[in-house]
Amino acid sequence: MTHLLDAADSFAATSLKGFCDIHARLVRPTPGGVLRAAATPAGKVALVIGGGSGHYPAFAGYVGPGFADAAVAGDVFASPSTRLVHDVAARAHRGGGILLGFGNYAGDVLNFGAAAERLRSEGVDVRVLAVTDDVASATAAEMARRRGVAGDVPVFKIAGAAAEAGLGLDDVERVALRANERTRSFGVAFGGCTLPGASGPLFSVPAGQMAIGLGIHGEPGVGESSILPAAELAALLVERLAAEAPPGAGSRVAVILNGLGSTKQEELFVLWCAVSEELAKAGLSVIAPLVGEYVTSLDMEGCSLTLTWLDDELENFWRAPCDTVALRIGAMAEAPGAGPDEAAEIAAAPAWGPATPASQASGRTISAGFVSLAQALKEAEAELGRIDAQAGDGDHGQGMARGSAAAAVAAHAAADAGAGAASVLAAAANAWADRAGGTSGAIWGLGLVAASQALSDERPVDAVQLQLAARQALESVMRLGGAKPGDKTLVDAFVPFVETLSAEIGAGASASLAWSRASHVARDAADATARLLPRLGRARPLAERSLGHPDAGAVSFALCTRVLSDLKGETS
Amino acid sequence: MTHLLDAADSFAATSLKGFCDIHARLVRPTPGGVLRAAATPAGKVALVIGGGSGHYPAFAGYVGPGFADAAVAGDVFASPSTRLVHDVAARAHRGGGILLGFGNYAGDVLNFGAAAERLRSEGVDVRVLAVTDDVASATAAEMARRRGVAGDVPVFKIAGAAAEAGLGLDDVERVALRANERTRSFGVAFGGCTLPGASGPLFSVPAGQMAIGLGIHGEPGVGESSILPAAELAALLVERLAAEAPPGAGSRVAVILNGLGSTKQEELFVLWCAVSEELAKAGLSVIAPLVGEYVTSLDMEGCSLTLTWLDDELENFWRAPCDTVALRIGAMAEAPGAGPDEAAEIAAAPAWGPATPASQASGRTISAGFVSLAQALKEAEAELGRIDAQAGDGDHGQGMARGSAAAAVAAHAAADAGAGAASVLAAAANAWADRAGGTSGAIWGLGLVAASQALSDERPVDAVQLQLAARQALESVMRLGGAKPGDKTLVDAFVPFVETLSAEIGAGASASLAWSRASHVARDAADATARLLPRLGRARPLAERSLGHPDAGAVSFALCTRVLSDLKGETS
Repeated sequence: MTHLLDAADSFAATSLKGFCDIHARLVRPTPGGVLRAAATPAGKVALVIGGGSGHYPAFAGYVGPGFADAAVAGDVFASPSTRLVHDVAARAHRGGGILLGFGNYAGDVLNFGAAAERLRSEGVDVRVLAVTDDVASATAAEMARRRGVAGDVPVFKIAGAAAEAGLGLDDVERVALRANERTRSFGVAFGGCTLPGASGPLFSVPAGQMAIGLGIHGEPGVGESSILPAAELAALLVERLAAEAPPGAGSRVAVILNGLGSTKQEELFVLWCAVSEELAKAGLSVIAPLVGEYVTSLDMEGCSLTLTWLDDELENFWRAPCDTVALRIGAMAEAPGAGPDEAAEIAAAPAWGPATPASQASGRTISAGFVSLAQALKEAEAELGRIDAQAGDGDHGQGMARGSAAAAVAAHAAADAGAGAASVLAAAANAWADRAGGTSGAIWGLGLVAASQALSDERPVDAVQLQLAARQALESVMRLGGAKPGDKTLVDAFVPFVETLSAEIGAGASASLAWSRASHVARDAADATARLLPRLGRARPLAERSLGHPDAGAVSFALCTRVLSDLKGETS
Repeated sequence: MTHLLDAADSFAATSLKGFCDIHARLVRPTPGGVLRAAATPAGKVALVIGGGSGHYPAFAGYVGPGFADAAVAGDVFASPSTRLVHDVAARAHRGGGILLGFGNYAGDVLNFGAAAERLRSEGVDVRVLAVTDDVASATAAEMARRRGVAGDVPVFKIAGAAAEAGLGLDDVERVALRANERTRSFGVAFGGCTLPGASGPLFSVPAGQMAIGLGIHGEPGVGESSILPAAELAALLVERLAAEAPPGAGSRVAVILNGLGSTKQEELFVLWCAVSEELAKAGLSVIAPLVGEYVTSLDMEGCSLTLTWLDDELENFWRAPCDTVALRIGAMAEAPGAGPDEAAEIAAAPAWGPATPASQASGRTISAGFVSLAQALKEAEAELGRIDAQAGDGDHGQGMARGSAAAAVAAHAAADAGAGAASVLAAAANAWADRAGGTSGAIWGLGLVAASQALSDERPVDAVQLQLAARQALESVMRLGGAKPGDKTLVDAFVPFVETLSAEIGAGASASLAWSRASHVARDAADATARLLPRLGRARPLAERSLGHPDAGAVSFALCTRVLSDLKGETS
């Protein structure tokens, strides 16, 4: 149970503030995360890690010499926004490029991926690394779909040491990818965690039972059994991991026996005695093992075992000195504090370029559209929440309302200042992404950014542009969100919408008529998806439910297209 | 809930084994505890700390350069035996004397106190320091009765730094006592902890409520309230401590915001933001604050705040470098590993001296007495457990049976080898103390040791010796155990026993008759005490209940004297 807080929505930010205050020797706060307190040499590759809060000491506890350069912190169990990832990474950049490291969750993949694209568009060399160590989350044949859990620690540690040793970005990425390919975790849970402000646990495990392979946000595991004695549990954990030894990986392993929150150190030491025997039986040599709380899940009861099969290079980086809050190895030369040059503020977003009066008029229309959208989504907030709660965590309405409201404000400001159609839509897109939160916020932001790239600040929006914008948005949503038609996401409504829009415009219909017809098709598709909800029920994986809002997404998409039907007349 | 174990009775020992394996850089195992892995200079004062297990990182996590030299670990929530304290301390001794540090609990006071006496009798200068920081456990007027909680950490840290700096034992003790006088802690609990192997928590707090001032073994607090927001909780904690500022202590404070097990780091950082504001409001300057898990109570939910008012000397020692598992400050010069000279085995207990045939005969009688006692206590084990469970934790019968069985074996071996009366009784006493466990085991051991000092190996036991032995045992029990008549302990039966025995012998009765009459008086007194049990019920403080066995103690004492009545004929 989480008891210490003033307000649930400020929990993560206040916690990070307290952390930075106590650990000022190692970290300094920056909006959305932390940076190293110590200076780093110019040209060093920057390792920037992050994800949702609630996993302390992941991720801010791993910032410091020999390890990460910065950490980005989202809300509890929620990915940081694209903008926060971008800004923290830009502040950590020392000219040598950036490796963005995160666990493989939909929201993080989207936001870190989008931030990487934004940084690249600014001329920074960026690589992304999604850690995929949780063997219970997908089969070995689908390793890239696995979630990241405590394997974050060895993978990031090794990458951080490689960067500290002066390797270039190509080599740091290569080492990090090899570490990830050779890292496996497996865990069990005895009880769930409670989100700050919630009155009961996010999930629970029957008394006397343990959930095998349960994810750190309660994602379903691979089975359940009665709680095993330490010796048998150790055998279960080691067996499952040893069976997945990477081919030709040798016998040296880095090991983390990790407590998830309320399974305490003394218990972990008891289990360690048995794990260490089982590892020896499996012919594995233990290198610099760690036993403690390294990636938690608030006050969850349970533990996990992580192995990284080492070669000489990986072992060297695993053993290398580091000085962070959560892990201190050897002695590092005392580095001077970071100078103001390193703490330079991110340049303000560039103002938009000149626009023609015709494109400015389209910009005003777009702005008006977002005002209508924000109004409609505010009214629909409770209903969307209700639909979402049937298969998700019920906050989809809130995210859509927050995102559209921010977009309306930003679009209005841009249009007022004379921006053209493309710039107004881009401003709205970024504001939506930054404020809506969660995966759906990131997806809407990315989709709208892609749409804005089909428009220009010189010409008014016409039917051809409109059709192209919709298609580019769809492609971006599908590429970055990873959903296909039939996955019960907004894609189910988006695909027939774009097909109808294109067909109608191709057949000579006005933009307004084509949009109206397309929005009807989208609504039908969304209704079909929504009818499946009660059948899907709570059996769906929690991660997908809480991050993807797959079902309510189609409904809200259809709603948005319908609201905008009223405005199409002005664009053709 | 504690889930990871194979067997409850090996939990603490296995956990310590795992701890030593993982942290071999800093500690090496020794029977009953841990020693520093690093060498310490000859002549340095040794700081030896300890107490029950279940409080990780207390105490083994604080062993290392700049902090403690060794830690002694009892079973979960149980004091280590006198012998373990003695042996670990003797191994840590480098010729400069020893400071024994522990929290102020009955069992620890007894066992560390008795170990100190044993070490002094071997020519080692030893000081004892019982930490008394918990303001909720007694009023300011009775500060010496307060329990020790997270205040252990600053007091031991400061003492350890003073020893590391080369101060002599007088100065280390002076600094440690001043640190203790200036240290105050206050805490709240949201939920209880579960002992390894237990099916439910040791105690509980109603949902939505918090227990104010609850002890780390569930000792009753000073009140209950609904759970407060972080800002109000911070105000409550700081206010209570600031009100107890030591006179003239200035405004600089060392601070520990401590999590008890399942109240997690991110929550503590949230609370820290509010605590830090409240401390500033109270005019206090925070010096090198710590926020985390420093003295836990298995998986208990709750937190505590500790302040130590610093002067220049204390601040210097509080900030000094140290290198331990739980606390690492600054950089210490790498010390070489401890050599075999430091890991010397404790010399085997000296064999007894020569004895006269008459005293050997008395020795055999004493040995026979312990055989009878062991038999009777084995038979009474369940009944004593039942009586104890009315107001205690029900293990008194077990402890008495275990102690007397060990004593019978040791006495038999000594008598067989030709030891005299004093040596046989001393051998039995030490075996009892070492094997019975808990406070009552320590008390019986100390009482029997004191009795043995009234006997000799030259003369047979006579009535005068018998009376003196009983009186010395009583004095020792009262002095070291701290109980007075009327406290519902074995003292209630012991006092009339000794008075009757003395009066009868003074009036010319035979030892046998006097003992028999005294044992009747003891039984009546014990019956009177036992009748009070249902009235006392579970309302008595848990610490007293679980440590002192106050009520069953009188009953078992009377039982023992009655059993021994049969043997008195041979001693006079």
